Amino acid sequence: MGKNLLVGQSGGPTAVINGSLYGVAKKGLEDVSVDHVYGMVNGIEGFLNGHVMDMSTLMEDGSIELLPTTPGAYLGSCRYKLPENLDDPVYPELFRKFDEYEIGLFFYIGGNDSMDTVSKLSRYAASIESPIRFIGVPKTIDNDLVLTDHTPGFGSAAKYVATTVREIAVDASVYDNKKSVTIVEIMGRHAGWLTAASALARKFEGDNPVLIYLPETDFDQEAFISQVKTALETTSNLVVCISEGIHDDKGTFICEYASEVGTDNFGHKMLTGSGKYLENLVKDKLGVKVRSVELNVCQRCSSSCLSATDVEEAKAAGSYAVERALLGDTGVMITFNRAKNEPYEMELGTADVNQICNAEKPVPAEWICNDGSDVTEDFLRYALPLIQGHVEVPEKDGLPHFIFRK
Amino acid sequence: MGKNLLVGQSGGPTAVINGSLYGVAKKGLEDVSVDHVYGMVNGIEGFLNGHVMDMSTLMEDGSIELLPTTPGAYLGSCRYKLPENLDDPVYPELFRKFDEYEIGLFFYIGGNDSMDTVSKLSRYAASIESPIRFIGVPKTIDNDLVLTDHTPGFGSAAKYVATTVREIAVDASVYDNKKSVTIVEIMGRHAGWLTAASALARKFEGDNPVLIYLPETDFDQEAFISQVKTALETTSNLVVCISEGIHDDKGTFICEYASEVGTDNFGHKMLTGSGKYLENLVKDKLGVKVRSVELNVCQRCSSSCLSATDVEEAKAAGSYAVERALLGDTGVMITFNRAKNEPYEMELGTADVNQICNAEKPVPAEWICNDGSDVTEDFLRYALPLIQGHVEVPEKDGLPHFIFRK
Repeated sequence: MGKNLLVGQSGGPTAVINGSLYGVAKKGLEDVSVDHVYGMVNGIEGFLNGHVMDMSTLMEDGSIELLPTTPGAYLGSCRYKLPENLDDPVYPELFRKFDEYEIGLFFYIGGNDSMDTVSKLSRYAASIESPIRFIGVPKTIDNDLVLTDHTPGFGSAAKYVATTVREIAVDASVYDNKKSVTIVEIMGRHAGWLTAASALARKFEGDNPVLIYLPETDFDQEAFISQVKTALETTSNLVVCISEGIHDDKGTFICEYASEVGTDNFGHKMLTGSGKYLENLVKDKLGVKVRSVELNVCQRCSSSCLSATDVEEAKAAGSYAVERALLGDTGVMITFNRAKNEPYEMELGTADVNQICNAEKPVPAEWICNDGSDVTEDFLRYALPLIQGHVEVPEKDGLPHFIFRK
Repeated sequence: MGKNLLVGQSGGPTAVINGSLYGVAKKGLEDVSVDHVYGMVNGIEGFLNGHVMDMSTLMEDGSIELLPTTPGAYLGSCRYKLPENLDDPVYPELFRKFDEYEIGLFFYIGGNDSMDTVSKLSRYAASIESPIRFIGVPKTIDNDLVLTDHTPGFGSAAKYVATTVREIAVDASVYDNKKSVTIVEIMGRHAGWLTAASALARKFEGDNPVLIYLPETDFDQEAFISQVKTALETTSNLVVCISEGIHDDKGTFICEYASEVGTDNFGHKMLTGSGKYLENLVKDKLGVKVRSVELNVCQRCSSSCLSATDVEEAKAAGSYAVERALLGDTGVMITFNRAKNEPYEMELGTADVNQICNAEKPVPAEWICNDGSDVTEDFLRYALPLIQGHVEVPEKDGLPHFIFRK
């Protein structure tokens, strides 16, 4: 078996995906049974085009220590879907390249679509009796992977969302003599975990955000207007959080009522504008001052609100993935199992990657309440440990000091 | 003369306006010649309606120490413009109320419009020979007040903008095999200081944001497209920063090409959508992948990127204002005078508030270069000291712990 390790990042970036890269690379570089640690530049797509870097350079100049506090994907990412048909010539081509680099261990850090890549590569490996071990390291701000308590990336994104919504609520309240509505649009195509995390922003019972809408329930525009109207009776400066993916009972996305949408490479609908649409709706129906704020890419790339818990878990997942691969595991994803909630205790494990890829874990129905306009205490108890701990990001000239490829 | 102090906040919030409130309140509460420190709830408009709080309660429970790291306006704000005509009955009404509370010292923390309030009150006071002293304490993220090197609020907003643009650039670069344009829309109606601060995000020469457009120069859509096209030749994932207030040589705001705009109470045009408009323009003309990000209210309300220099200066301005008032000054605003740049040394002073209100300080023409698509090294040397130093915001349950009125 090849004595070298290959690691890549795929899908949308998160604030801690480089933490997992750090975990994999450092463990690999330190382990005597691993000769070289190679990084795929721009994922499996870049690897196919021969874009590979030797990760030992980051150890030599010490810059590897900047990885866990650098957002984005240091190695670059891709959205490349391997063919469903394992007879496709891309598979032997890839495995020839693996052999060329004498790869024995393969790690892919990503979400559902990346686990699909790990699944296909490990199944193809089995079919040709290749000894290469393929392991998935989870990351997604969406927190929608099954068979794991949560995924690295969610904690920091949740902390960013809760912090920002608390700040937006403070900002909205400065003119409290005039009624106003602020609609905050949060990432989450099908799963509302990140939108639900906005509930953490409340400083006391009944505090903003008063209304929270997830894509797990059908969104009714008339019920929404009536709920906003009722909420404005007790909260002058109302903050409403919505998921970008809210839709009605016919399955029509709310943003589709406003504008045309396209689809991405994976056939996902590209969403934009649910907040803007509802802003106009509230203005039209209730005549109050309304604004909408789209949290946008900062949710997944901000280093300002890193959760120490999340960063440590991202690193641990990467490191543990190398351990398990060396023990012989393949075709699995690293999972998190909550042993205890108070105090919070997490155990790492593995699960069959074939059962994870292309599946999605929604927020459970029993954690959604008030006719789909809020989340329960159970959700808060689940999410709270994941945002704990502050991470000091090294500064240079007054700004966060990030590592980047030249 | 009344032995009590009255302080209020007005205009849009900033991340450090509560730092100045802290400076005024603490100095007032500690000074033996001041009996009571009162806060106007929702500025002069709230005061007229009898909304006043005793600030000593914050000293008693120690919560005053949370003020400097709490964004927004603790006392609440207003956008109330006093009548131009000093014969208006609101003036004697206000001064009757000042006497009722035995006010001798009046402090108003705000921007141009708030200085207009200080100007009118001090002029009316002179006309009736009132001994009350009126002092303006500057704050604005826009940094557009004249007769001062800069204003508290700008440093933290600039740090937020530069940090966030650096993070957005990192996020944009993860798929560097595909050309893309990210347009970031930054606050600033007439003055481009905050948009200019995005240049601080560059990690090396030629780094993103490659193109920066301020409202100080006329924006030419054809020249813009040609500059984007040229920049894409050397930067695959281009980040462009624009001020919300960019306009063409006819004075038409770029966003007006997209949608209707209204005006606020002060007759300012309400802007939205320049970024969105240019996103569509680039897509249409160049056919590349484009997205636009509106930084929105987080620029003025984020506690995550507080500049230690800014927080300290905001506190000092408040404290110095009380000193100067006790020395007999009135009708002035506290100013910052840069004594030295390296190392940075700032001296506090005062200037006639009548010369400040309703005037605006643009970014100097000699600090704008490359046909209006960049800022010079001189601007960077000016701005860099203002974003220095990290502030640890107290956390509670994993989120920033803010003080708020119950």
